[in-house]
Amino acid sequence: MRIAVLGGTGKEGSGLALRWAHAGHEVIIGSRDAEKARRVAEELNLALGAGRIRGADNAGAARDAEIVVLTVPYAAHKDTLANVKDAVQGKVLVDVTVPINPDDFTRVAVPPGGSASKEAQAILGQGVKVVTAFQNISATHLKKLDAVIDCDVLVCGDDDAAKRIVMQLVADAGMKAWDAGPLDNAVVVEGLTPILLGINKRHKVKGAGIRITGA
Amino acid sequence: MRIAVLGGTGKEGSGLALRWAHAGHEVIIGSRDAEKARRVAEELNLALGAGRIRGADNAGAARDAEIVVLTVPYAAHKDTLANVKDAVQGKVLVDVTVPINPDDFTRVAVPPGGSASKEAQAILGQGVKVVTAFQNISATHLKKLDAVIDCDVLVCGDDDAAKRIVMQLVADAGMKAWDAGPLDNAVVVEGLTPILLGINKRHKVKGAGIRITGA
Repeated sequence: MRIAVLGGTGKEGSGLALRWAHAGHEVIIGSRDAEKARRVAEELNLALGAGRIRGADNAGAARDAEIVVLTVPYAAHKDTLANVKDAVQGKVLVDVTVPINPDDFTRVAVPPGGSASKEAQAILGQGVKVVTAFQNISATHLKKLDAVIDCDVLVCGDDDAAKRIVMQLVADAGMKAWDAGPLDNAVVVEGLTPILLGINKRHKVKGAGIRITGA
Repeated sequence: MRIAVLGGTGKEGSGLALRWAHAGHEVIIGSRDAEKARRVAEELNLALGAGRIRGADNAGAARDAEIVVLTVPYAAHKDTLANVKDAVQGKVLVDVTVPINPDDFTRVAVPPGGSASKEAQAILGQGVKVVTAFQNISATHLKKLDAVIDCDVLVCGDDDAAKRIVMQLVADAGMKAWDAGPLDNAVVVEGLTPILLGINKRHKVKGAGIRITGA
């Protein structure tokens, strides 16, 4: 598939971009700064030893892609969504955003709209299939292509076909996906990240994660 | 310790009661129906081969205990808390309640008060140390004392000393506890249960759970 990774110059986004390109997908890194996006794309192509990644500004990346993945910080969430709203109509948007509490990153704060991804759906309208995934994946090991990511991916969304596409992309990135129900459930998956960051802090580690057991 | 398990005639409560009694704690099963509580206590004593469990009405159980564990359905949450409010002042109350969405038990519904346990704290007042735990533990295997429970316990609360007591009780019941931060984080732990119930339903299993990795 042709995948745009908006905010793809960041650690999480560029790690996912590298893994998808490695799996044979065509990837467009999106950034507010198109020049920076192109530079990061070239670095990733060098790491990959192939030319499947290019850079563009966020709206251009979203326009050219079949599926759009959003990996910006929560502070840039609304503006980025408004910026790409037209370009993503009719597409699947994968929201990776975690609403981090500015006062304490280990304390859950439920956003006014119910969750970051419910806010995304409200901004984009019903013409876009919002699916959430990857919020609990630490960026730490994403760029090591042979590293086993010891964390499952909980996938939420209201459109089953869109969810199946995203679950395949999770597998293509070397992770295990679980259907975690409708978009209403994303508040929980987003909120797991502050809990994992608290465990990181207390245990002096970088990549605490979760695994689903018994199924 | 002397532990009251309110709603302890149910599957989750009686399973925890049995495990704590097995670990040497004195347990009081609480129920709206004291007679039923005494009957279940006797059954558990028979299973245990010891007489460390007795039954009482909820308020009596709470009054006689050092620590009070609440395992009632969400529909009985507010009434039970109001009923034991005086009896639990100055104590630790462990809230196991999951707010189940009556329209769809696999869909997360955040309660008006932020979470069941925040509602408990509001009802009981600041004289009670509310800690949450065990919401994600399926009752299925609790009563088999030699069964390994393949699910970790995320413990939330605003009082560190109270949280440490509860984390020890988790270990005494044969499970692994993690400090999952302040009571504000309980909305996530409570909401994990509908997600796990959805996984149970889709995968035709009974006891999907979670494990924390990487820490």
